[in-house]
Amino acid sequence: MTILSAQPLPMSRCSINTATLGHRSPIGEVIERVARHGFGGISPWRRDLEGQDHRLVGKHIRDAGLSLSGYCRGAYFPGASRQAFEANVTDNFRAIDEAAALGAPCFVLVVGSLPEGSKDIAAARAQVAEGLAMLLPHAREAGVGLAVEPLHPMYAGDRSCITSLGEALALCDRLDPSREGGVGVAIDVYHVWWDWRLSEDIAAAGHSGRIMAFHVCDWLVPTNDLLLDRGMTGDGVIDVGSIRREVEQTGYQGFAEVEVFSPRWWSTPEDDVLAACARGFAAI
Amino acid sequence: MTILSAQPLPMSRCSINTATLGHRSPIGEVIERVARHGFGGISPWRRDLEGQDHRLVGKHIRDAGLSLSGYCRGAYFPGASRQAFEANVTDNFRAIDEAAALGAPCFVLVVGSLPEGSKDIAAARAQVAEGLAMLLPHAREAGVGLAVEPLHPMYAGDRSCITSLGEALALCDRLDPSREGGVGVAIDVYHVWWDWRLSEDIAAAGHSGRIMAFHVCDWLVPTNDLLLDRGMTGDGVIDVGSIRREVEQTGYQGFAEVEVFSPRWWSTPEDDVLAACARGFAAI
Repeated sequence: MTILSAQPLPMSRCSINTATLGHRSPIGEVIERVARHGFGGISPWRRDLEGQDHRLVGKHIRDAGLSLSGYCRGAYFPGASRQAFEANVTDNFRAIDEAAALGAPCFVLVVGSLPEGSKDIAAARAQVAEGLAMLLPHAREAGVGLAVEPLHPMYAGDRSCITSLGEALALCDRLDPSREGGVGVAIDVYHVWWDWRLSEDIAAAGHSGRIMAFHVCDWLVPTNDLLLDRGMTGDGVIDVGSIRREVEQTGYQGFAEVEVFSPRWWSTPEDDVLAACARGFAAI
Repeated sequence: MTILSAQPLPMSRCSINTATLGHRSPIGEVIERVARHGFGGISPWRRDLEGQDHRLVGKHIRDAGLSLSGYCRGAYFPGASRQAFEANVTDNFRAIDEAAALGAPCFVLVVGSLPEGSKDIAAARAQVAEGLAMLLPHAREAGVGLAVEPLHPMYAGDRSCITSLGEALALCDRLDPSREGGVGVAIDVYHVWWDWRLSEDIAAAGHSGRIMAFHVCDWLVPTNDLLLDRGMTGDGVIDVGSIRREVEQTGYQGFAEVEVFSPRWWSTPEDDVLAACARGFAAI
């Protein structure tokens, strides 16, 4: 086992998820700003790119000296009808093509959960597995990894029926039993830090080559809103540094990407948010 | 395997956790009211009984024709200092004596989590295990079961470092490897419904004789507050009936206890709350 020293993460491996900046400025400006602050990567959302040529945006990103750490995010799979489910899958097919045009290494999937009126989380999980299986051949052909992101269990009712890293990995193994690749996980400390099995699941994810993205932010105490009260890395109670080390001990050398949803940060000038992101990375 | 038909739970096996009524009335009135509505059990909180003779309250409960389904709830174990930790354990010793005086079959433990300033959830877990080990001989002597209640992971920062049924069971097995008893779990659908391992963990809990309490309420979509927005059984997205059947298929024949924290219900007349509880039980 390699024991890594607690080296600060080099800025070249730090990425900014555009949601952290609140989707306030056109993507071109965001790209320039992120590059100016010295980060190495960026992960845009679909909403940032509406009506744009994804190929050109990808070129802009590379010309600015940035790499893509991912593309956010999938349409929820489960639907109240077969037709709704198929429309969701179709939307995700389109998003894979966008990710490929951008040159993103992976497409982050927040999988959805109970359709309105349903209490059947097992059925939602089955739809998610079916939808991913439909996408996987296309994603492989496009060279875009499907990064399944388990969300915190407080989103199990509406946003994600996949609620732990262990569950996401079991799903990957079902979809890709011979480990050809093309499907993996996005590990966000916010969603998984509470899990008593976290260390063993990170090790399993790393050793099976499934870690496609690593997201950081923090859990505030108290947390006043289920969706919009994330903390900047270092401001909360998650031992992000330890989790980062566990992820890297599996051999992961990709980006750490900061993703914060918070009106507090969204009303802070963008340059100040990016400076806070840099301080957060330095602390882990 | 016994397949049970979906019989409605008889009222004799339905219990009211006094928090559901908002701790508005003296415990004597609450006991009479719960009995008048035909429920078979009650589970009081320590705060309901401050300054009272627990033996007399227990007699009142039995005289009203009710049984105790539990006694709520433990002081958080972890402390920022050894002294603080020991004070918390001492407080739980007292609570066990109170539970014995009442005649409660079990004492429900919400175990606590990170002391202020800490990010070390493993240390919190170690303190919880140590505290429980200190209590267990006394609890066995007193005839009061220690019911460890895993809480929803959204409470991992402050209220409970035990965040899944599987984790709680592993802790029980460490404390009581030869299954002498005296330590088990309180399963609250609100806290565990999201867990992909729930069915197997319920089976394991039941087959090891560890289910000491079963609590019901519901998860609302949207949920607007992390602590105080629980729904009445049937009003949310949890398939409580299926979970109840899984619990009973292990042989559990104890109470289902309704525990709702909600200002909406706390501002509803107590008789109306109890009527809603009865409707909720009928629906599962």
